[in-house]
Amino acid sequence: MTGPATLALASAYLSRYPAEAARAIDAYSPAEIERYLSLVPPERAVPVMNALTPMTGATVLERLPVELRLAVLQQPERSRAVALLGQMPDDRREQVLGELPDGLATQLRQTLEYPEATAGRLMDTAVFSLPAEETVGRAMALLREPHRGSADVHFIKLLDAENRLAGVVDVRKLAFNSPDTVLSSLARAVPAVVGPMAPREEVVEALEAHSLDELMVVDQEGRILGIVRHGTLLNALKSEASLDIQTMVGVSKDERALSSSWFALRKRMPWLQINLLTAFLAASVVGFFENTIATFTALAVLLPVVAGQSGNAGAQALAVTMRGLALREITIGHWLRVMRKEMNAGFWNGVAIAITCGIGVFLWSGSVGLVLVIALSMVISMVAAGIAGALVPIVLARLGQDPAVASSIILTTVTDVAGFFSFLGIATLLSGMLVAGG
Amino acid sequence: MTGPATLALASAYLSRYPAEAARAIDAYSPAEIERYLSLVPPERAVPVMNALTPMTGATVLERLPVELRLAVLQQPERSRAVALLGQMPDDRREQVLGELPDGLATQLRQTLEYPEATAGRLMDTAVFSLPAEETVGRAMALLREPHRGSADVHFIKLLDAENRLAGVVDVRKLAFNSPDTVLSSLARAVPAVVGPMAPREEVVEALEAHSLDELMVVDQEGRILGIVRHGTLLNALKSEASLDIQTMVGVSKDERALSSSWFALRKRMPWLQINLLTAFLAASVVGFFENTIATFTALAVLLPVVAGQSGNAGAQALAVTMRGLALREITIGHWLRVMRKEMNAGFWNGVAIAITCGIGVFLWSGSVGLVLVIALSMVISMVAAGIAGALVPIVLARLGQDPAVASSIILTTVTDVAGFFSFLGIATLLSGMLVAGG
Repeated sequence: MTGPATLALASAYLSRYPAEAARAIDAYSPAEIERYLSLVPPERAVPVMNALTPMTGATVLERLPVELRLAVLQQPERSRAVALLGQMPDDRREQVLGELPDGLATQLRQTLEYPEATAGRLMDTAVFSLPAEETVGRAMALLREPHRGSADVHFIKLLDAENRLAGVVDVRKLAFNSPDTVLSSLARAVPAVVGPMAPREEVVEALEAHSLDELMVVDQEGRILGIVRHGTLLNALKSEASLDIQTMVGVSKDERALSSSWFALRKRMPWLQINLLTAFLAASVVGFFENTIATFTALAVLLPVVAGQSGNAGAQALAVTMRGLALREITIGHWLRVMRKEMNAGFWNGVAIAITCGIGVFLWSGSVGLVLVIALSMVISMVAAGIAGALVPIVLARLGQDPAVASSIILTTVTDVAGFFSFLGIATLLSGMLVAGG
Repeated sequence: MTGPATLALASAYLSRYPAEAARAIDAYSPAEIERYLSLVPPERAVPVMNALTPMTGATVLERLPVELRLAVLQQPERSRAVALLGQMPDDRREQVLGELPDGLATQLRQTLEYPEATAGRLMDTAVFSLPAEETVGRAMALLREPHRGSADVHFIKLLDAENRLAGVVDVRKLAFNSPDTVLSSLARAVPAVVGPMAPREEVVEALEAHSLDELMVVDQEGRILGIVRHGTLLNALKSEASLDIQTMVGVSKDERALSSSWFALRKRMPWLQINLLTAFLAASVVGFFENTIATFTALAVLLPVVAGQSGNAGAQALAVTMRGLALREITIGHWLRVMRKEMNAGFWNGVAIAITCGIGVFLWSGSVGLVLVIALSMVISMVAAGIAGALVPIVLARLGQDPAVASSIILTTVTDVAGFFSFLGIATLLSGMLVAGG
């Protein structure tokens, strides 16, 4: 921030490309970010605040001038305020909430009581609802009142005498009916609702099943508590769809890049311990052939090559199969076709890799026996890897498990054992062709 | 399909839970699926057809009675018809298109000319558009005509004198304005448009940036070609968000679970060959210590345990960091915080695993020296794995690359080399404490 020209450029960037500019300053100190935000008028600063990561946003929020802080927290899309407040320590959160109008503060407090990644936490409690016996004319008059925010209302929620959700009326229908039409005559059933404690996964399932614009959250009596809006639904979908990458390696669904080390430690440990057990299993295969290795130490050098290649080939098969299941492009019933495809791909990739690898090993060792051993075991273990990569997620799904959960750890065990066993087994069988000492 | 009771049950299941029932029958033969579909009235059969995987759906479609086939292809959401026709061989597709009204057939043919996973292929060409100078009254009259499908129209697209997209009018606004209001006075700018050749990735970026309900596809002159509807946008978002799992292990973006073996072979091969190179690099580390291994063969047995554990710990760190970048919860600027977290988690997980592993190795070998070697190298290599898992995606992103591309292959190289080097290096240093021969 040197001359006035630089300032003007920075301010133009923040105004015109708030999301991009926010990414660029996100890792600066809160004081610096606050200084940048002061370069632009408040209505331009809000989009920048929205695009900051929640953790940064929360620390910056506390330092902002009160009017800008209020502008951020009073946006129509409540979920942003909830995300920021959710990142704050309790005492400072209460201080910030104290500045807000009582009604909004109470609503936000209620939302924040629900656990993270539940429908209650994702919902916006400001809902446009009317008694079912109201008329089109009355609904239109209310929607026209500016503070109702008619631009955000897609569906009017109809309530019965006990204030339970009785149906919804598409706002667009108001245009085609006379003012004295009773709303309930235009209502249609709500395709899906969830309870406030429903996990994000269930929210996303409802979104996908009905291609919803918004999702209503109701209590046990069917009274409406809030709605999860479109932008929040999209974020939830993205979050769920990218989860497999974590669960496949034994990371908890709740861990995020900036979770504490302690959280990461505690949640990852069990799978690492299980992985250790499976590693011992693979090691015992190697131990079984210890005499062969003692005679031909070159085998120890090449052992990781076979296991590494089959591990990678297996991971490829696993990734494609898991994604196919997640996107519902295949079902469990397709197991034979998928397995055949991966077996074929594994075989021919195995042959190709065996050739390259064989040339490399020949140049290094000059031993035709060693080339034969590694080439044969490469093909065998890559076929095994293909089969396992296809079947592990399908079998997990068949057993009613999430096909991603720790699939990578299971697969690695299979590919390690197959790689070690085929390589050392063939070496033992063909030991007459190998040169002792490497 | 035995008695009448079974038939009634099957038919009830198909009618009431079409999506679930479709998953259950998806892997049956097309003839069997067709027989099941004949159990329910056509309007109940369409949702089942919609929930079948596209590949199965396409083969079943050809066998259906003509009226049911037409019902499937003439649904308002065109993208389903496009997906099914896209799976058919050219000759049979033409045969099916021949049964459709000329207008629809031409529209579908045009859409099918765009490559897969482009905006052109995803769009629906039936768009409700009007000249900008039309009035609210005329728009409402047209929307009321049943065949216009007013239920699907959220925004009226306004066209200028050259038929270019000039803005959109929210259908809900019609309700609040007199019939003689000119539409252009109610218009707002279109937040985002894409060209028909825009890749799905760009479609998803526009969706996320503006939280869109639908996305307009325009040609170079700005004339509207079609719209990508909400359900299709959600599928595209899910498809993109789950892509990292493939790209991280060197699988092409275009591969699907049922792609041909040949496609899989061709596209995966380059990364497998690169992986072979890196495997030789790791092997050369082992080769460097061949003398140590020749003396203490127990090292060869335990070598994969260290590399396997650090590989798995690294994969966990990688997954969480990559997802954080994808969900924009962190930026490149957070590298130090993320690295510190993963270093800490790696160290303490390393200590815990070193203890368990040490006990196991002591029980197996009774050698305190070996326990010391594996425990020390476990901690070192797991810290290295944590650091690498955090930094690999961040460095890739910094270099302007997709943080997922082949990150897993790069990481494995790092963890293998770190694991082998620390384990064999420490063993060589402490060789006085080891027992020759294992």
